[in-house]
Amino acid sequence: MGSQYPQSVRVYLPLWALTWEVAFILLFLFFTSYDTGPLDGRNLQRYHAVFQDVAVMGALGLGFFTSSLRRFGWSSVAFNLFMLALGVQWAVLLEGFLEKSFTVTGKILIKLSSIHQAAMSAMCVLISVGAFLGKANLLQLTLTTVVEVTAFEAVKTAFRHIFNMNQHESMMYIHVFAAYFGLTVAWCFSKSLPKGKEGKDQTATSSSLFAMLGSLFLWMFWPSFNSALLGSLDGRRKAVLNTYYALAVSAVTAISVSALARPQRRINMTHIHNAMLAGGVAVGTTCHVISSPWLAMILGLLAGLISIGGVKCLPVCLNRVLEIHDTCGLHYTFGLPGLLSGITSIMLKMYHVSWTNSPMFDLKTQNMQSTSCD
Amino acid sequence: MGSQYPQSVRVYLPLWALTWEVAFILLFLFFTSYDTGPLDGRNLQRYHAVFQDVAVMGALGLGFFTSSLRRFGWSSVAFNLFMLALGVQWAVLLEGFLEKSFTVTGKILIKLSSIHQAAMSAMCVLISVGAFLGKANLLQLTLTTVVEVTAFEAVKTAFRHIFNMNQHESMMYIHVFAAYFGLTVAWCFSKSLPKGKEGKDQTATSSSLFAMLGSLFLWMFWPSFNSALLGSLDGRRKAVLNTYYALAVSAVTAISVSALARPQRRINMTHIHNAMLAGGVAVGTTCHVISSPWLAMILGLLAGLISIGGVKCLPVCLNRVLEIHDTCGLHYTFGLPGLLSGITSIMLKMYHVSWTNSPMFDLKTQNMQSTSCD
Amino acid sequence: MGSQYPQSVRVYLPLWALTWEVAFILLFLFFTSYDTGPLDGRNLQRYHAVFQDVAVMGALGLGFFTSSLRRFGWSSVAFNLFMLALGVQWAVLLEGFLEKSFTVTGKILIKLSSIHQAAMSAMCVLISVGAFLGKANLLQLTLTTVVEVTAFEAVKTAFRHIFNMNQHESMMYIHVFAAYFGLTVAWCFSKSLPKGKEGKDQTATSSSLFAMLGSLFLWMFWPSFNSALLGSLDGRRKAVLNTYYALAVSAVTAISVSALARPQRRINMTHIHNAMLAGGVAVGTTCHVISSPWLAMILGLLAGLISIGGVKCLPVCLNRVLEIHDTCGLHYTFGLPGLLSGITSIMLKMYHVSWTNSPMFDLKTQNMQSTSCD
Repeated sequence: MGSQYPQSVRVYLPLWALTWEVAFILLFLFFTSYDTGPLDGRNLQRYHAVFQDVAVMGALGLGFFTSSLRRFGWSSVAFNLFMLALGVQWAVLLEGFLEKSFTVTGKILIKLSSIHQAAMSAMCVLISVGAFLGKANLLQLTLTTVVEVTAFEAVKTAFRHIFNMNQHESMMYIHVFAAYFGLTVAWCFSKSLPKGKEGKDQTATSSSLFAMLGSLFLWMFWPSFNSALLGSLDGRRKAVLNTYYALAVSAVTAISVSALARPQRRINMTHIHNAMLAGGVAVGTTCHVISSPWLAMILGLLAGLISIGGVKCLPVCLNRVLEIHDTCGLHYTFGLPGLLSGITSIMLKMYHVSWTNSPMFDLKTQNMQSTSCD
Repeated sequence: MGSQYPQSVRVYLPLWALTWEVAFILLFLFFTSYDTGPLDGRNLQRYHAVFQDVAVMGALGLGFFTSSLRRFGWSSVAFNLFMLALGVQWAVLLEGFLEKSFTVTGKILIKLSSIHQAAMSAMCVLISVGAFLGKANLLQLTLTTVVEVTAFEAVKTAFRHIFNMNQHESMMYIHVFAAYFGLTVAWCFSKSLPKGKEGKDQTATSSSLFAMLGSLFLWMFWPSFNSALLGSLDGRRKAVLNTYYALAVSAVTAISVSALARPQRRINMTHIHNAMLAGGVAVGTTCHVISSPWLAMILGLLAGLISIGGVKCLPVCLNRVLEIHDTCGLHYTFGLPGLLSGITSIMLKMYHVSWTNSPMFDLKTQNMQSTSCD
Repeated sequence: MGSQYPQSVRVYLPLWALTWEVAFILLFLFFTSYDTGPLDGRNLQRYHAVFQDVAVMGALGLGFFTSSLRRFGWSSVAFNLFMLALGVQWAVLLEGFLEKSFTVTGKILIKLSSIHQAAMSAMCVLISVGAFLGKANLLQLTLTTVVEVTAFEAVKTAFRHIFNMNQHESMMYIHVFAAYFGLTVAWCFSKSLPKGKEGKDQTATSSSLFAMLGSLFLWMFWPSFNSALLGSLDGRRKAVLNTYYALAVSAVTAISVSALARPQRRINMTHIHNAMLAGGVAVGTTCHVISSPWLAMILGLLAGLISIGGVKCLPVCLNRVLEIHDTCGLHYTFGLPGLLSGITSIMLKMYHVSWTNSPMFDLKTQNMQSTSCD
């Protein structure tokens, strides 16, 4: 992702991006209008706060999170913003087209909640770009954004209709989806690229402070992300508390275990950036039903250990056997903890009947979530 | 704005600043008291949130926004904070003196909303300082702060009484006012300064990441800025949505067109820092009346193109013909998009009668805004 | 606090930290459950916002605040997060054990407000670590965290029962406690350490921008910190306003007086980082009762002067006479302004009777605060 471009990219990029923009503007002109219904002051405030937190996580958190790993930290932040701004517009349109009310009225009603939902969907592109940074130019990134947002929205809608999931649950598979989509794209790129690009994932001390800044913003605002789409107050309260405990434990685990995982006697920065977030990913699908902190803490502990363990073993098999070069450690930050989250969710549902009366898991609230959040 | 000062500045600065502070404290002692009226919990929370967002934009966003362009990035952030803290105190007093209730009771009632209004007024100094950074010392900056805040408050009050504008509209001319006030001051300084100062606007990669951080905070919190002074819930909802769409489109435009505007084959950082914010400026005066996203998106697209076009053509005529050295690109970030915003607002008002029944523009709400926001 | 460790630390640290984590998980398993009582949407939103602000201050503000002063800025941020995450878990448990309801039911009810209270208590560790940075390894920091949180909770509970203080007042002694606890630990370390470590507190320009970022976040979010534990709406409004005015004046004072305090002709960065926050510390205990801005401004002015004066005189006596090496200027940022805050509080209480009818101090509200904030 050097900022020195060949002639073709320089000329086609503006044309290409402006064509997309004009197409979006025409689609918005013909198919959308703002929601003019009555509005509660409390809802306005809540949605504004949620939308701001999601914007901070997307533009700043994920932008700086990946900025340590390349020669051009600055361009990664700018490209991240580009993909976010493009992805949000496309996701708003897609989510509108896929709603039932569109088939009836032929109009998409843009509510305040539309934007943060769309921004969360667009974040799947920002996550998966971590796997092929430095291998794609801005033209390719534009195309990836549109394709991945489309694919994610399709998968989300399928999950909601087939498995009868609510908005929150279908969104929480974003981490697994993004990680494996990113790795697949990285695998395609690794075939077409010449050798000798391995030297690019060098870190510098000053830029690793920026990456720490990005990770910290993600860490601090993750409870907002996990509770953003929940409708019931009790579900949101549990989501905030569980996510916080899981993140606290995974941060302690990451920082203390990191020194063990390396042959040299140093704490590794990249481990910690990745592993401290693993806890938030691991409680994603179940954060609104777990009703005791200890279970969230165990998930955080496991996610931290998996993430640090993955960083020790996985690069070898990924790099050498599958020839994927996972630039940002996507697989062990988002992929494996996301799978852990999915397994936990399935286990909790399987034992639903026997645990219903247990005070530890409060699965009745889960059904109350099914009402859409607006 | 080097941090090495002559003897006179070192000795007079503390005296000068402390004299201002003591004068402010005496004015506050004799003329102000806190509002002790009944208070709604929701309002407290809203005003606290708005005030925090404005503080983040002023202290952090505008502080770091200009930090890439000088040898002393750190001092620009500190001086920015100094001017913000001084300007807020003066703006609170001035706004109180200019209110009708002061002439009746002889007391300024300080409400929670006073602080964010004052902070927004003080931001005009932080914007216009971008034009004469590196040319003024801290003594001159203190004086500029007091003079500019006074001038801006006077203009704002005049606008409100002559053109019957509401608080939001009169505030939104801040960008145009700040840009041309800054350029005027820069023109005065450029005459008195010796030649050979042009080498000072060099950027460094690590500090441009800080500038990106500042720009991102401005970008993310701009919807708060544009909706802060609106009274009606519906106006605030529209303002948030329109600002967001305009910013998204101007970010995409800025990043994609930037490469075209430069003879070398590189994306330019300063262009993007400036142009990605132009969308937020361009919808400032009309964000609460536009009732379809596509118009906001078109304004964002135009603002982005104007800003990038300006950066290509304007420095030549400004630097060579008028001998103004616009250090931070104030003219094409805030000046021109602010003029676009004013023209849009006038056009919307002119066609008011013919468009009243159109669903696209909702000008009736505009009149509801006239009730003061507290 | 180099990141190169001897064998023993590398092996024992994970064992030690994971043992603590497992113990915490067991304690949470047997003694805690989430509050499942009815919940108001407004409270949920408020506590989420407060908790986020406190997290930003702890993880980001205090983390970067101390990052300028060492060779390894990155590890200071990571260690700060480690201590915060560990301290919060321990503080939640301790505060639960010390509550009356625990002795009745044998269960700790974890509410949303528990986390931000615990995070504020855990911040005493993050403040006092500034005095012995670069002298302790991560094993020692873990132990310090647990000991200091225990000591602070004990002192807080004693204050509440003996002096009949409310939650807000007992929390506001955190600055004094943390400063002198930190200096005591630094004094112990300075005896056991070999000489020749004085060269470690060098600053670099790029990392001092990070320290400025941390300071700015502390500066902007301090009104949240001072109003977080107040129950009455009027107290919170006053706390926000008073804290803001005190901070504004201390920032102006710090930046203008700084040049005087140094033999070289330069504004000193570390002075400003410290002195601009002194105002927030100085109004801590009285921010909810002061009912005119001028008194808060005078406290801010005094705190700024004390802080800059301290930085000129204190290092000499501390370093040479007492042999304490106060790495981060803890004594004059948190210690002395905290004492000023305590003295103001006592003076206001002593003159309570004669000033009760004065409009300047509103001590009746203070009694209303005694009702716990949830």
